[in-house]
Amino acid sequence: MLAGKYVDMLTKKSVIRELSEYAVARGREIGYENVFDYTLGNPSVPVPESFNNSIIRLIGEKSPMDLHGYSQSLGIAEVRTAVAESLNRRFGMNYTMDHIFMTSGAAGAIAHAVRLVCEPNDEVITFAPFFPEYIPYITHAGVELKVVKPSLTDFQINFEAFEEMINERTMAVLVNTPNNPSGIVYSEATIKKLSKILLDKSREYGHIIYLISDEPYREIVFDGKSQPYPAKYYDATITCYSFSKSLSVPGERIGYVAVNPACPDACKMIVMCGQISRGIGHNCPSSIIQWAVSENLSVTADMSVYEKNMNLLYDELTNLGFEVVRPSGTFYIFPKALEEDSVAFCKKGCKYDFIGVPADSFGCPGYFRLAYCIETEKVERSLEALRRFVKENY
Amino acid sequence: MLAGKYVDMLTKKSVIRELSEYAVARGREIGYENVFDYTLGNPSVPVPESFNNSIIRLIGEKSPMDLHGYSQSLGIAEVRTAVAESLNRRFGMNYTMDHIFMTSGAAGAIAHAVRLVCEPNDEVITFAPFFPEYIPYITHAGVELKVVKPSLTDFQINFEAFEEMINERTMAVLVNTPNNPSGIVYSEATIKKLSKILLDKSREYGHIIYLISDEPYREIVFDGKSQPYPAKYYDATITCYSFSKSLSVPGERIGYVAVNPACPDACKMIVMCGQISRGIGHNCPSSIIQWAVSENLSVTADMSVYEKNMNLLYDELTNLGFEVVRPSGTFYIFPKALEEDSVAFCKKGCKYDFIGVPADSFGCPGYFRLAYCIETEKVERSLEALRRFVKENY
Repeated sequence: MLAGKYVDMLTKKSVIRELSEYAVARGREIGYENVFDYTLGNPSVPVPESFNNSIIRLIGEKSPMDLHGYSQSLGIAEVRTAVAESLNRRFGMNYTMDHIFMTSGAAGAIAHAVRLVCEPNDEVITFAPFFPEYIPYITHAGVELKVVKPSLTDFQINFEAFEEMINERTMAVLVNTPNNPSGIVYSEATIKKLSKILLDKSREYGHIIYLISDEPYREIVFDGKSQPYPAKYYDATITCYSFSKSLSVPGERIGYVAVNPACPDACKMIVMCGQISRGIGHNCPSSIIQWAVSENLSVTADMSVYEKNMNLLYDELTNLGFEVVRPSGTFYIFPKALEEDSVAFCKKGCKYDFIGVPADSFGCPGYFRLAYCIETEKVERSLEALRRFVKENY
Repeated sequence: MLAGKYVDMLTKKSVIRELSEYAVARGREIGYENVFDYTLGNPSVPVPESFNNSIIRLIGEKSPMDLHGYSQSLGIAEVRTAVAESLNRRFGMNYTMDHIFMTSGAAGAIAHAVRLVCEPNDEVITFAPFFPEYIPYITHAGVELKVVKPSLTDFQINFEAFEEMINERTMAVLVNTPNNPSGIVYSEATIKKLSKILLDKSREYGHIIYLISDEPYREIVFDGKSQPYPAKYYDATITCYSFSKSLSVPGERIGYVAVNPACPDACKMIVMCGQISRGIGHNCPSSIIQWAVSENLSVTADMSVYEKNMNLLYDELTNLGFEVVRPSGTFYIFPKALEEDSVAFCKKGCKYDFIGVPADSFGCPGYFRLAYCIETEKVERSLEALRRFVKENY
């Protein structure tokens, strides 16, 4: 018999997917360039040329057995070392290769992190608004995901609600900063306060509460600022990274788990990741992609377009009277809808070919997300559609 | 707290790994060319040039967004279609892309297959000798793995023991032909008899018993023969494939699940694989590797060296009086040790720098495995060491 859990999942329609499919179908009718499709978070800028050049050079220079051969089960040693050194340079950490485990993107990293520090029926806490894929990532490991309600004024952490929720079964807290969908960067004050609570509660409950820090948008921060590095503030931090956004290579499925060397049993935890892999069929990202990434740790795709798009949208939304917190990073903006039911709101937008997604599944009903990883020229043209949409309906 | 299950795994030393590490360490002492290291199943022949050429051409021709962008969650449509058509041409099947799900090698494929058709506490049956990684693949999904004892005369299936073991909780049977470690190809008669039993028992128990067919060695068959395609003989077959061996790209982590179109709910099962991925952090193999593989479905690495090596070893082992079934494929040979304790036997071999692995963990104590995916010249030199080892000890 087919496994009931997955059969059931097939019947649950995702509104995001529905709207995204609508946008593509509408594109076939009127030309996709005329559909202002803000539904999906796919990078819209090309990979740096140096990444492709690395691949071509590697094929020419490396022996095929080294290049395409089995990676060591924790990732290629030289690649892990290069990742450690890059993090040390940038964030003043002291990782070695023994603190790095190469994964298939951040999804793979989180799949390992949760199994590393949780037993079935433990709890992980995350903060709304949150990336809805956290639900399968956490619950399919047999672990309960609890969601702290949002701080709507700034989308930092609602600490009051968090302190009410944390309890003896809480084994990890999962944060995502810069945040999908809010576009907000957690401030140093937020991270410090969170760390203090985690430290106090770890002592109170007699077990470590780990911080799982999901950082695929780390490199997309606006106004020349940068994201405070959470592991710098809390020893028991498991950093989950993906190169999907920074290098615009989401299809190549490459990222890593980095365990803070100050975390008790840090090296052991990395070796455990190799054991976890055996049961979930993961077994390392592609070797050639591991090598290529290790040569491109100091570069990113040209992501300036995202900040440009954000400013255009933020200014127009504000002009039109939307309640919206200005994003500090990512390629998302997260305004409050102009009516309570954000699903109805987004469906009305479709009539103007202005397509965002309602935020109910992000744990924040009444809001909607625009993923502005599209050409700036299209963002500019979309503003007129947005104006008409708002003026004719509200 | 760290998850106990994985902490416990760290303390279990694998004899195979121990011997493999010994071989590498010994190589540092006397030169690796002087260590006859038969421990690991890593392909020893290079990837076909056309595969690397595909990668270089794809980089030149495809837009970076298409080439490195998110793959659809079931795999790239064109790649799935190409895989389906290749299987149809070769085995007279009628797959479409809707029956194919792209995975990170066979490990990824089996991780999906077992979650697809088993609920926790169900049973999967496999046949000794078997690849020991089946234990984590199956048991980490919460499913019990039961092992049918071997048919020592031919390493086909011990049907008597199998019929005693199969029961109402059996949801799937996992076969691996050509087989690691025995090197044996299941005959058409074996596959037909297995299919008949599965069909009868499915009727008797009122639920389908699926055949999960793990086929990474499908393309390495000797004497100009070929492996009968199990799905051709049993409708409810889930074929798990890896390109690791046929293209010599084990590090690139690429394979697929193919569900027989004649299997009830075949297309639904493929969509379910996409749901399973969300929970285990899998999310497709690398895009560029998917594209490259789809252009190289009709080629393989030059694997003639494996047959040459097998013949050299088989003849010498037979001359020396070993009980050994002649392999029909793979790059393994599986003789009976010359004393009851095959661990002791293999450790004695180490003194002659002739290093195989005992088969206790393959469910076949008293036997040992030689992985002859090494240079023929080295195999030839190893025979003198083998002779000395045998003559001085038995």
